[in-house]
Amino acid sequence: MEIREMLYEGKAKRLYSTDDPEVLYLEYKNSLTAFNAKKKAEMEGKGELNNLISSWIFKYLSKKGIESHFIEKINDNCQTVKPVTIVPLEVVLRNVTAGSICKRLGLEQGMKLSRPLIEFYYKEDELDDPLVLEDHALLFGWATEEDLKTMKEITLKVNDALIELFDSIDIDLVDFKLEFGKDSDGKIILADEVSPDTCRYWEKGTGKSLDKDRFRKDMGDVLGAYREIWRRLSERGE
Amino acid sequence: MEIREMLYEGKAKRLYSTDDPEVLYLEYKNSLTAFNAKKKAEMEGKGELNNLISSWIFKYLSKKGIESHFIEKINDNCQTVKPVTIVPLEVVLRNVTAGSICKRLGLEQGMKLSRPLIEFYYKEDELDDPLVLEDHALLFGWATEEDLKTMKEITLKVNDALIELFDSIDIDLVDFKLEFGKDSDGKIILADEVSPDTCRYWEKGTGKSLDKDRFRKDMGDVLGAYREIWRRLSERGE
Repeated sequence: MEIREMLYEGKAKRLYSTDDPEVLYLEYKNSLTAFNAKKKAEMEGKGELNNLISSWIFKYLSKKGIESHFIEKINDNCQTVKPVTIVPLEVVLRNVTAGSICKRLGLEQGMKLSRPLIEFYYKEDELDDPLVLEDHALLFGWATEEDLKTMKEITLKVNDALIELFDSIDIDLVDFKLEFGKDSDGKIILADEVSPDTCRYWEKGTGKSLDKDRFRKDMGDVLGAYREIWRRLSERGE
Repeated sequence: MEIREMLYEGKAKRLYSTDDPEVLYLEYKNSLTAFNAKKKAEMEGKGELNNLISSWIFKYLSKKGIESHFIEKINDNCQTVKPVTIVPLEVVLRNVTAGSICKRLGLEQGMKLSRPLIEFYYKEDELDDPLVLEDHALLFGWATEEDLKTMKEITLKVNDALIELFDSIDIDLVDFKLEFGKDSDGKIILADEVSPDTCRYWEKGTGKSLDKDRFRKDMGDVLGAYREIWRRLSERGE
């Protein structure tokens, strides 16, 4: 495989074309950012950990029948993925209140919700990724009714699969953010990554954060937490 | 009727109990506020105009079969209303993009929507009345599914009635905000007011703002615009 031009550089990853139009090359950077990149850091080894964890989880989800753009892990920092057209909506699922929703709606942290809550955010850094209604997405052409339905269905399936997975390694899945893309057949599949950058993981019993909140809130030992997630996943076996 | 204690003072109105438990006394103040009261002014005659316009519109809506808390206009600044328990959600209906939605979602002003857009905002000044999903309202106990359905149905009916009304006096109804309350039977009815404080009115042809945007955007002659709305309504006849 020959790596060609860089197609896109995001806050945590770079995407390259290859000599195969059906294969892109995704490099995980060592950057950590929070609050729409108002807070930034570089941490040696972070890209590798997210690549390891995200590759592992995409493979796990695939076995549960949930398709993603992931093809295979190539080396420490890189994986190959299928080209997709990204739907400009981030999908957040919350099992427990934490983070932005608490500040925004004046809620306590750590309230278990009676059922999973799904929220859509319009992917637009300049607008700070605002929360949107499904009607906004429909009226302003960001997704169709069918797209929204499919994304919600997949998100609930991912939640079931990840709760089962993380339960088995003594971690509560608080919330997570997904991105979706349409593949060359127009089919909606998971894209981006599923890692401690995009999920909240609380250790059962202690409630210790094992995710990017350690960086957001200056709790220290960020990479230690990411390594702990990777240790538990790899020891569990696939 | 004897006026007793003040029950509540809002940004634009004061509410008093009376000797009749089924009747409250609502006084319209001369205050104008915008941006969650970060911008304020006093304008002599403003309370009277809003009382006139809102009384007129509530009577008009009542004839169209839409119930509100309004009982009758008592004097220049005051009307009697039924006591209700306010639902802590503001309901906004937009026919055309303007104001906060444009800033929030990066949209052009003045885009005609292909159908009316209904948004709920959580009534909480300290949080700056955030946009919320119906699922937020359900999960955090601010309204039931039945409440939301009823409020949306009434809001669409109000839109049809007000479009017809304002069309007849050469004004485009851009958007409006409603509040709802539950009466002593638990029935959801319109509350608060319907006035140039809570609607956007654009004069047909010229596009001139005849509403609180003149105050928000320092366009001048705020009360002139409110008076013009009142003149057209009163000349039209009920």
